[in-house]
Amino acid sequence: MKATIVTIGDEILIGQILDTNSRYISRALNANGITVCERTSIGDDRTQIIETLDRALAESQVVIITGGLGPTKDDITKHTLCDYFGSTLRYDEVEAEHIRKMLEARNIAFNELNRGQAMVPESCTVLHNSHGTAPGMWFEQGGSVVISLPGVPFEMQNLIDDEVMPRLRERFTLREIVHRTMITFGIAESILAERIASWEEALPDYIRLAYLPAPNMVRLRLSAYEVEGKEVCREIDALFDSLRTIIPDNIAGFEDASVEELVHNTLIERGKTLAVAESCTGGVIASKFTAQAGASAYLLCGVVAYSNEAKSKILGVKMSDITQYGAVSEQVAMAMAQGAKDISGSDFAISTTGIAGPTGGSEAKPVGTVWIGIATSNHCFAVRKNCGTDRSQIIARATAYAIAMLHEELNR
Amino acid sequence: MKATIVTIGDEILIGQILDTNSRYISRALNANGITVCERTSIGDDRTQIIETLDRALAESQVVIITGGLGPTKDDITKHTLCDYFGSTLRYDEVEAEHIRKMLEARNIAFNELNRGQAMVPESCTVLHNSHGTAPGMWFEQGGSVVISLPGVPFEMQNLIDDEVMPRLRERFTLREIVHRTMITFGIAESILAERIASWEEALPDYIRLAYLPAPNMVRLRLSAYEVEGKEVCREIDALFDSLRTIIPDNIAGFEDASVEELVHNTLIERGKTLAVAESCTGGVIASKFTAQAGASAYLLCGVVAYSNEAKSKILGVKMSDITQYGAVSEQVAMAMAQGAKDISGSDFAISTTGIAGPTGGSEAKPVGTVWIGIATSNHCFAVRKNCGTDRSQIIARATAYAIAMLHEELNR
Repeated sequence: MKATIVTIGDEILIGQILDTNSRYISRALNANGITVCERTSIGDDRTQIIETLDRALAESQVVIITGGLGPTKDDITKHTLCDYFGSTLRYDEVEAEHIRKMLEARNIAFNELNRGQAMVPESCTVLHNSHGTAPGMWFEQGGSVVISLPGVPFEMQNLIDDEVMPRLRERFTLREIVHRTMITFGIAESILAERIASWEEALPDYIRLAYLPAPNMVRLRLSAYEVEGKEVCREIDALFDSLRTIIPDNIAGFEDASVEELVHNTLIERGKTLAVAESCTGGVIASKFTAQAGASAYLLCGVVAYSNEAKSKILGVKMSDITQYGAVSEQVAMAMAQGAKDISGSDFAISTTGIAGPTGGSEAKPVGTVWIGIATSNHCFAVRKNCGTDRSQIIARATAYAIAMLHEELNR
Repeated sequence: MKATIVTIGDEILIGQILDTNSRYISRALNANGITVCERTSIGDDRTQIIETLDRALAESQVVIITGGLGPTKDDITKHTLCDYFGSTLRYDEVEAEHIRKMLEARNIAFNELNRGQAMVPESCTVLHNSHGTAPGMWFEQGGSVVISLPGVPFEMQNLIDDEVMPRLRERFTLREIVHRTMITFGIAESILAERIASWEEALPDYIRLAYLPAPNMVRLRLSAYEVEGKEVCREIDALFDSLRTIIPDNIAGFEDASVEELVHNTLIERGKTLAVAESCTGGVIASKFTAQAGASAYLLCGVVAYSNEAKSKILGVKMSDITQYGAVSEQVAMAMAQGAKDISGSDFAISTTGIAGPTGGSEAKPVGTVWIGIATSNHCFAVRKNCGTDRSQIIARATAYAIAMLHEELNR
């Protein structure tokens, strides 16, 4: 079963917003055994919408469209779909009442544009959007399904979870897709590939291998599409077992989780706590943990000690150390980690201090230089990493390194 | 001048990674007067790559492809392009030497797979990737250009900035694209659209209007493609001027900046400082500021006070207030903001405390309840916001509300 995802909006094409909807929908479809063969972003343009729909329906049985359903003139998806399916618009009293109530709660009067939002094509099944004013739409044509959803991420997400997926599972007989990922560390991608070449060579043709490199690790993903789930899971387990004999010292885990998820799970399992002291990463490390439900069980505090005063006053870093070694130094990274551990009483603490640029670099400490500190009940140390040249890249890499180092420390 | 962006990789289609490359490339092309008419993500599949290229070349003079250039077997972009353009691979000594040096620095031996990375199609111009081991490639065909870049974001970004854009500007005569954005607040999208309907009606057909709603504000973007930049800029200024007479009390600014960028600029201009105390937003607010170069001029510190102990010990929130009113309360939000202001000596402080879920809600304080506090030298107050139902949505909305409130406070 194949699917195409189409996201509509000039704001995507000019790069004003990041298209996160496609990923959410991809994941949901994949988890339900539907293979996404293409994701396309196009503008709010009638001709382009029609041509893209024609093409999508030629190869996919499921087409999911987001965006272009707002009340204003630049949003043309609904009218275009209505014409495409040869339908006419009708006024939906239920949707109108829902929109009226949503606006009332915000003290906004229901006007002609909102009336337009309650108009839906005769031929579609209305997907009720309890979190917003633009209803979703479900069209059927020649055995295929076209689903149109609002572009606002949380409205789209709720519609996918509550309306679209249950209906797709009912409408089609879906076969499973299995992805399993092994996490390797301490071995470069090209060396890893060389070492496991004959194992890779011998993979059956319905199982695909992908290499996913990240700082300090390479993930190996085995994927099987439209299969008997249980059979292929056993087969993949066996394949990973044989891989274990080839690279016994380089396997960190088997989950399809991000490193922060692995750390999150480990800390909760062991009942250990964490504190974070960030300078150059500026809150990103803390946010990676707090993004996960249940982080309050272990994350005692985070300190974004951007100024020297904050490093000293909140974390207890000695001003003399900052003066002598510089704010970006092994000593200060260690003192920050130790300070965060001490003020919070946590079991583990991590810290970052570095030069995110574009200014502030020197020959000895160029932009991208980051010291990452770790403090535990046993020891306190810091490691210097070169995290690149671009500010956002430096922040992202320093974050990834710090979390990977904590992961390693937890699995020592 | 039209462009199509193609990102290749099964990891995008299954939703394992978020495609940020497309946005980066979109912005760069736009800034140089090239209109992106479509962005497509496809799998590591030879047939699909060829079909997508055929289609892209039928409508675009510039096609930019990322991904699929790694050393391993799942990466097939280079061989597919080589065949597509009827070329053969040659060994590039310069690239080989560069790869060898990059590996040497990481203590990795140059192997057969790395040798493969130094093979490039005869017919392409090699785009040197100084930050990675996979070179970029520039193909010419029938007046169009096809550019293939590695998928690793910072390698791709550097190639776009240093190689692709300068060459595109030299290769084509580019006309300007102008986007200008007005920020409105205190007026709902549908009401705004109603009020400015006749103004919108009268827009010339080469200027497009888009409504971009966000928490507490709606952006109005006027876009003109392939125009004489100076002329149309004057015209857009005049259009915005006339809009000012229609909604005089709802205009926050004219920049095409995010609210955090506006706050960032204002604080730097006025020489004022900021401290952040976050509970439910867990570091995201701090990270929005520290993502911007120069944030160290005003951001004194951030505290992620996730536990009650951290709220009390670091920020000086009274434990009795937490017990009496709850951690998610007006009193605690105010005390957190005041505490952050006091410990850092900043001019402004913002705080968040809320229930990000999925657990922890009650009837009186359901999941999504967030108190946002602001402390200045004049006053300290907190506002309750309902930020939705989903954890990531709650964090994102609370962040947006908090920064928008600070923006309003700065423009009071």
